[in-house]
Amino acid sequence: MAEFKSKIKTIEWENTYTKMVDQTKFPDKFEYVNITTGQQMYDAIKTMIVRGAPAIGIAGADGVVLYAQELAKQDLTFEKFKEELIKKSDYLVTSRPTAVNLYWAVEKQKEIIKDCKSNKEDLIKKLCENAKKLELEDIEINKKIGDNGATVVPKGAAILTHCNAGALATVGYGTALGVVRSAYANDPTIHVFADETRPRQQGARITTLELVMDGIPVTLITDGMCSYFMKKGMIDMVVVGADRIAANGDAANKIGTYTVAIAAKYHNIPFYVAAPLSTIDTSIKSGDEIVIEERNHEEVTVINGKRICPEGVNIINPGFDVTPHELITGIITEKGIARPDYKKSIAELFE
Amino acid sequence: MAEFKSKIKTIEWENTYTKMVDQTKFPDKFEYVNITTGQQMYDAIKTMIVRGAPAIGIAGADGVVLYAQELAKQDLTFEKFKEELIKKSDYLVTSRPTAVNLYWAVEKQKEIIKDCKSNKEDLIKKLCENAKKLELEDIEINKKIGDNGATVVPKGAAILTHCNAGALATVGYGTALGVVRSAYANDPTIHVFADETRPRQQGARITTLELVMDGIPVTLITDGMCSYFMKKGMIDMVVVGADRIAANGDAANKIGTYTVAIAAKYHNIPFYVAAPLSTIDTSIKSGDEIVIEERNHEEVTVINGKRICPEGVNIINPGFDVTPHELITGIITEKGIARPDYKKSIAELFE
Repeated sequence: MAEFKSKIKTIEWENTYTKMVDQTKFPDKFEYVNITTGQQMYDAIKTMIVRGAPAIGIAGADGVVLYAQELAKQDLTFEKFKEELIKKSDYLVTSRPTAVNLYWAVEKQKEIIKDCKSNKEDLIKKLCENAKKLELEDIEINKKIGDNGATVVPKGAAILTHCNAGALATVGYGTALGVVRSAYANDPTIHVFADETRPRQQGARITTLELVMDGIPVTLITDGMCSYFMKKGMIDMVVVGADRIAANGDAANKIGTYTVAIAAKYHNIPFYVAAPLSTIDTSIKSGDEIVIEERNHEEVTVINGKRICPEGVNIINPGFDVTPHELITGIITEKGIARPDYKKSIAELFE
Repeated sequence: MAEFKSKIKTIEWENTYTKMVDQTKFPDKFEYVNITTGQQMYDAIKTMIVRGAPAIGIAGADGVVLYAQELAKQDLTFEKFKEELIKKSDYLVTSRPTAVNLYWAVEKQKEIIKDCKSNKEDLIKKLCENAKKLELEDIEINKKIGDNGATVVPKGAAILTHCNAGALATVGYGTALGVVRSAYANDPTIHVFADETRPRQQGARITTLELVMDGIPVTLITDGMCSYFMKKGMIDMVVVGADRIAANGDAANKIGTYTVAIAAKYHNIPFYVAAPLSTIDTSIKSGDEIVIEERNHEEVTVINGKRICPEGVNIINPGFDVTPHELITGIITEKGIARPDYKKSIAELFE
């Protein structure tokens, strides 16, 4: 099986700081920014300089190291240092409360903090190593997801995706777009339909950008158009990412995903979710337990610096929706593809 | 039944000129412009100062009167005057060649020109009266559609609409939003959800504007969000307009309508189409015969003067989609609400 070489490395720990692609500049510029403090990392997550569940996880792990480096400059006992670092770590998680990967990666760092009995220097070294390990693991996991997913992509398929679950949402390969990359490596006749994904337009600004950069053909459509192309037989499958998956297979992802899933079901088109096991939260039984974050209203009312509607209009801006498991054909993970009954198949993935 | 008084009169013949809302200024400004010459009317239609099929029809009828007034100042025989006026009328139609209502309204004026045997002054008076008659008829038809539709709006309903089938697409009351206005007149607890309606954002720019002006509560959502609110029980019904309806009830409307209809069906939410009988084309058996116009790609790639995606992306921009009759709960017309079986019920409307 041919391997795909992506040009994109989204986030990378560089010894004492994090280098990341500034995703707020898309599609005008593809620029890197260096994050050198914990608060900068908090802001980078909050303002979506870094975005995408797995990338945010790595950002969280790196952020803990950055806070550790700062706290080490203060005159604190080792116990006090650890205590403060735990506090900073918990604060970091509040930058994006819905992101389970952020919580998960920061928890991993917290375990190291709690377990460390030596000294500040050694703890920082351990946290640093762990951050780098998670970073490299993410690419490996993505490649496995991609290769597993590629097995269900028909020859010459047109693949619809929503939002961005690509190299730019991860460390550098992608989950949903990892499936695309692995499939494309072996079949350059496939192509991608990218939903614009209002309000933040990650599909238009990010998914198309990374696919163009990697030379994979992509057609941009507006969010309402998916059913039109499905009916015309121009879409063979849907693959999306996920922010959080419940034990029963219900999957939270960018707002609008649920609408695409309903349209796919109506047209009998397979609908896959591609995500690492770390996205699956077996502590929640169903999507009903997932709290949907309400985001800034200007995401809806302002585009390119200009209002698109008059004053006096009400806005509700849920950041995510939950696609119920009955609309999902399969959940593509690094350990294989879970299929209904998800309660059973997801439990098996964790055995 | 209480009557709704709208503040909006989109286009109005004022004795010797046309006063119309300049729709190119939305949502920044709500301004009127006086159209005093035939060429100004041609330009107003071409540059979309006036838009919406019914409103464009009235603009065409008014334009013929404006040309007649100008030609009357020249020293022409009555026959030569009529001949020149027919030429100018045909020219007017070329401002928007695909607009069926424009063609239809100008043809009505041309019949009057051809039939007139008296003199210039009398002909101008007849053309003027006919333009005013078409204008008033449009409002009357809309009010009947609105009143018929209001009978199926539940108390306190949240009504989702897509694109703009409102006062600003017609002379001054609206079809889908005519239903909203008639319902609101008797139940001020109803409210509207307006889809943004990418690519041209008529929902965000126009529907919200006219509802805010008329004091009807409106919430703007992005196109992908509809299913989220449907699942939460926050949307009680959908009402949209139509550009063309086939004999079997299949309805062409702004791209994205079909996706909303599928989502409504999935959640068992009634989906209505509101349109005058003139929109129903019984010469076409089904939606399969409706040719979908492919529009300018910049509608997708550029918002507020700025690109939202990189170069190198493919674009397909269908302007409309067809909602199959099996997804439509009822078609609200000035003669009543047609329900399945549509072949039968639509035929009965024309008896």
